[in-house]
Amino acid sequence: MIVSDKSEVNARVSAGNGILALAPVTNGGGIESTPMRILDLLRAEQPLSRVELANRLGVTQATVTNVVKLLLEGGLVHEGMRAQLSRGAPRRLLELVPDAWYAIGVQIDSTTMTVVISDYAGNRVAATSLRGPGDLSPEAAIAELVDHIEDLLESTAIPRHRILGVGLVTYGPQDRPRGMLLTPQPTPEWYEFPLTSRLGEALGLPVLLENDATAAAIGEQALGVVPSASFGVLFLSTGVGGAVVIDGAPYRGRSSNAVELDHVIIRPGGRECLCGARGCVGVEAQPMTVSALGFADPEIAARLDLRGSPEECLADFERLARAARGADSVAADLLEKSADDLGLAAVTMFNLFDIDTLVLTGPAFRTAGPLYQQRIEAILRRYSANRDLTEPRVLVSANPELDAPMGGALQVLRTVSPPLERSAALAA
Amino acid sequence: MIVSDKSEVNARVSAGNGILALAPVTNGGGIESTPMRILDLLRAEQPLSRVELANRLGVTQATVTNVVKLLLEGGLVHEGMRAQLSRGAPRRLLELVPDAWYAIGVQIDSTTMTVVISDYAGNRVAATSLRGPGDLSPEAAIAELVDHIEDLLESTAIPRHRILGVGLVTYGPQDRPRGMLLTPQPTPEWYEFPLTSRLGEALGLPVLLENDATAAAIGEQALGVVPSASFGVLFLSTGVGGAVVIDGAPYRGRSSNAVELDHVIIRPGGRECLCGARGCVGVEAQPMTVSALGFADPEIAARLDLRGSPEECLADFERLARAARGADSVAADLLEKSADDLGLAAVTMFNLFDIDTLVLTGPAFRTAGPLYQQRIEAILRRYSANRDLTEPRVLVSANPELDAPMGGALQVLRTVSPPLERSAALAA
Repeated sequence: MIVSDKSEVNARVSAGNGILALAPVTNGGGIESTPMRILDLLRAEQPLSRVELANRLGVTQATVTNVVKLLLEGGLVHEGMRAQLSRGAPRRLLELVPDAWYAIGVQIDSTTMTVVISDYAGNRVAATSLRGPGDLSPEAAIAELVDHIEDLLESTAIPRHRILGVGLVTYGPQDRPRGMLLTPQPTPEWYEFPLTSRLGEALGLPVLLENDATAAAIGEQALGVVPSASFGVLFLSTGVGGAVVIDGAPYRGRSSNAVELDHVIIRPGGRECLCGARGCVGVEAQPMTVSALGFADPEIAARLDLRGSPEECLADFERLARAARGADSVAADLLEKSADDLGLAAVTMFNLFDIDTLVLTGPAFRTAGPLYQQRIEAILRRYSANRDLTEPRVLVSANPELDAPMGGALQVLRTVSPPLERSAALAA
Repeated sequence: MIVSDKSEVNARVSAGNGILALAPVTNGGGIESTPMRILDLLRAEQPLSRVELANRLGVTQATVTNVVKLLLEGGLVHEGMRAQLSRGAPRRLLELVPDAWYAIGVQIDSTTMTVVISDYAGNRVAATSLRGPGDLSPEAAIAELVDHIEDLLESTAIPRHRILGVGLVTYGPQDRPRGMLLTPQPTPEWYEFPLTSRLGEALGLPVLLENDATAAAIGEQALGVVPSASFGVLFLSTGVGGAVVIDGAPYRGRSSNAVELDHVIIRPGGRECLCGARGCVGVEAQPMTVSALGFADPEIAARLDLRGSPEECLADFERLARAARGADSVAADLLEKSADDLGLAAVTMFNLFDIDTLVLTGPAFRTAGPLYQQRIEAILRRYSANRDLTEPRVLVSANPELDAPMGGALQVLRTVSPPLERSAALAA
């Protein structure tokens, strides 16, 4: 399964044996083939009986029976315990075979790269992180990443041929179909560098590109506690990202670059943003800015041992968040101002997307989550236009650092179809 | 076809004979049944052959042939001219029967109510307007509206039993399923008043509620010049509204109250808005405000004969727009400031929804369209985050006053299925 360029990645991804070919991914991110829908529903709610699957998907029981037969033969699902319902014969409950297949999720941020491996049921079986690309060229960053992934695969003893692919999660704007970033960050060489094909080539695996906040939404949807099929995500790492899920599907927009929450202007005439405008919430409220403001204050910088370098931005933010939690009023002021700015941007997000639930996720929320949750929810309850229809609520992810890379891995499981013949042979 | 309450409206709307039952309307507004998809495609692009219909909809020719047979028998379509293609037998082209059915569209704004009648092919066959509800109770406003519609039906000689229903288009927030406004405007009695069921009862027709900007998007999509399947709408009447169409379907959000563009804050600390925030683009830039600012200037108020009353707000805005076009610098300044404020809100809309095209529509753009087009496009090209991926463009509707009511009528044609038995009998 050596993949030497993008077109072969695509060929590999779209190859299939008819019924289990790659699910057509709609612009909204929906999953449309019945086998993939069955697998996805099991991943979310297993164990389920054939009757439950048919009812939930609105297809006939005969269809479910036929598809499940193929999935059983292919070693993707197995029959577990029987459920004795009130009447009729007991029903065999179906579950995914966790070690049938795996997917890798990688999140690249300027200061950190996080790698996870998910099994076929969506359980995280490994997670690790290494320093981000900083000002490395994309070639050098990919080389470090590949070494790291190879080590991880070796230590977990997961065979390469059981891995369906890699979900590469990073900031935007992106050209998702071509697997490229459309931003000259962290260095100009990254602009239109063939990221997914080069990583795919080096690992011998197909690679899909995904937006970080959208990946976090997918991760949160599958693994988190969000009690609604429609919600927004505020993703906070060194910068600010946004995503929206409506009726279970991520909102993608025209070119998969939707919900650029960081460019909501909350302070006209404020700090200059890379986009050319002033006072965008990203440049005003992102951890990179909060940490720099902290470092610029000699008293608190010394007291909290802030480092002040871009690579230490999230670590400095974490120091400030811990101090704020410990009632350090200077640190608390810095974080509260950031939270209030993000609250105003969240009001705009709620008003435009008609949502009532926001999930806070991303590595910056590890300690700061509750503080931001409280401030942002208060602002939403005060200002969002539809607050009287449904009371806005803000939740903090239970996995703020892992939602995004897990979402990348899950997107691979949801959209890349396993080569059934081989898995059937292996399962035999 | 007397409709006496909401549940009967719903029963009437969802009644059908199986194959032509009301198309399931997804949250995204998509149309899913094959007959309704065929009718909708013909409405947009007729004449089309059966082969073209099958190819465009991704269904088999046998399916198209079977459905078309029913539609022919029902008198909804007819075979027009033959198209001689390069090889093979000539193909009969299908067209909708324009006078098979009709729909009424009504747009209610505080100062104006506009009524249109569309034939089954989506052609406007009548349009009229009357003064808006002002501070009338909903009962009184409905009584005036019903009188007006009855007169219009009499003058056009369209038989009541050929009308599929009424699309009632107004501002939000709305409870679309229940057919109620969730805002105490123009008077507190309007809040949760059973608008659609009372109007339906009075007219003996089913009534669907629709958001004004979304209706304008639907009208523009079907009748306008927008060259893209994904675009935003800035709807300007006395106030500001927004809508987004992605891949042909209106974005609805969680409760069909999406794209509340008027509450994008563009001037923190600015004018107080009804929502409780300050500096929302609606209260800063809407024609109601522009006209009031003009009236507050004694020199220009006298020169342009501005009236200053809420009912005259759009007429005063029109006077200012004509003066601005005639190089009156005071009037031009007022409109340019409004346009620039709306341009900033449009930047946020583009950044969050990932679109590259904006259509300006609504009665306020009758004369002011080109001025707003130029200013808003310049701001989008300067500040929208993805401007380097695709150059933003702004278009002015050719039907700024009629897009919204026509969209209301079209939404009825697209979602209410004709009672086939009777139309078959009548066509015989």
